[in-house]
Amino acid sequence: MAKDISKAVIRRLPRYFRYLGELMEEGVERISSKDLSERMHVTASQIRQDLNNFGGFGQQGYGYNVEFLYEEIGKILGLTRRHPMIVIGTGHLGQAIANYVKFEKLGFLIIGLFDVDPEVVGSKVRGIPVLPVTDLQTFLETHEVEIAALTMPKDAAESVVSTLTGNGIRAIWNFAHVDLDVDDMVVENVHLSDSLMELSYRILQSE
Amino acid sequence: MAKDISKAVIRRLPRYFRYLGELMEEGVERISSKDLSERMHVTASQIRQDLNNFGGFGQQGYGYNVEFLYEEIGKILGLTRRHPMIVIGTGHLGQAIANYVKFEKLGFLIIGLFDVDPEVVGSKVRGIPVLPVTDLQTFLETHEVEIAALTMPKDAAESVVSTLTGNGIRAIWNFAHVDLDVDDMVVENVHLSDSLMELSYRILQSE
Repeated sequence: MAKDISKAVIRRLPRYFRYLGELMEEGVERISSKDLSERMHVTASQIRQDLNNFGGFGQQGYGYNVEFLYEEIGKILGLTRRHPMIVIGTGHLGQAIANYVKFEKLGFLIIGLFDVDPEVVGSKVRGIPVLPVTDLQTFLETHEVEIAALTMPKDAAESVVSTLTGNGIRAIWNFAHVDLDVDDMVVENVHLSDSLMELSYRILQSE
Repeated sequence: MAKDISKAVIRRLPRYFRYLGELMEEGVERISSKDLSERMHVTASQIRQDLNNFGGFGQQGYGYNVEFLYEEIGKILGLTRRHPMIVIGTGHLGQAIANYVKFEKLGFLIIGLFDVDPEVVGSKVRGIPVLPVTDLQTFLETHEVEIAALTMPKDAAESVVSTLTGNGIRAIWNFAHVDLDVDDMVVENVHLSDSLMELSYRILQSE
């Protein structure tokens, strides 16, 4: 199932998941595609189309069962299981990620932090000790790690990839300023500057 | 010009800009759409299609002039002028943004930092003093600020928006865990957890 879903639909799924989570927190049990569309600022037909990719979930005249839909989208996104994660680079961005409890609630558990700076190694972030990058290989051999978040400079990121491959890591969440492309690994390259450039474009267009 | 460009094309423009910047750093003066496509892992026809939205830029049998294309895309993205920016919230994410010199090179100049925490107010990040949020209104009346980056919790973000509107701010770069939607303002909501969920989806699909 869900093999030929377009990237655009996949990109929107986390957003549905977030909004449904908020509705649940507000105690809303069901919602029409019309009400959901107003809240999310997308058309009701897009919502129906998107969710039809996964079999629908809605019932004519009833709308969507919020909790059911939340859980189903969670399943599709693979959020029903734990994702052990390490963060390599404990600068501000690495620390921001390590401190973001929201990720933990979604199942992304940070089990290791790594840095090259001897002044940082040995300190703790939320109780998790910062280890030297030289310990990375041994750590991966003795722990099951699914995702490595890279929050270090470009050159360092490219060199750490060789340690990550072949050691059980399934995915790289890359914040270094380079598009990584690694065989047999899922890579999500995040460029904060791209979003800033899009903002700049939209400012220009709004004039 | 460039009024009816699809969101998907706009989303790809910063990526072209990054790759062209790298090519320039490497001293490459011109590149064929085929070579550019291999480097960027997109099809040559997509590149041609994307750039045709803005009038083409390529010459048959010659390829693209790297510097010219870089500059033209920079113009389209509004990167030829300065974008004075403030950061509200100097936790780890705020500090990461304030320390990211790359943004400055793109024209996004951080001219003010704000926080509610009295222990942080008065300190400096890269020479920029952290001011109390209570000074925000006065600051906006006396400085020209185009973009406000919000790197604070959801509730605080929602309440600061009223101070931002009507004080010259054109755009909000929002990292708080809420989709802000503000009249007459360009808003880019960045949800790091969305990208983590996409990663999780792709891991599941790769099994």
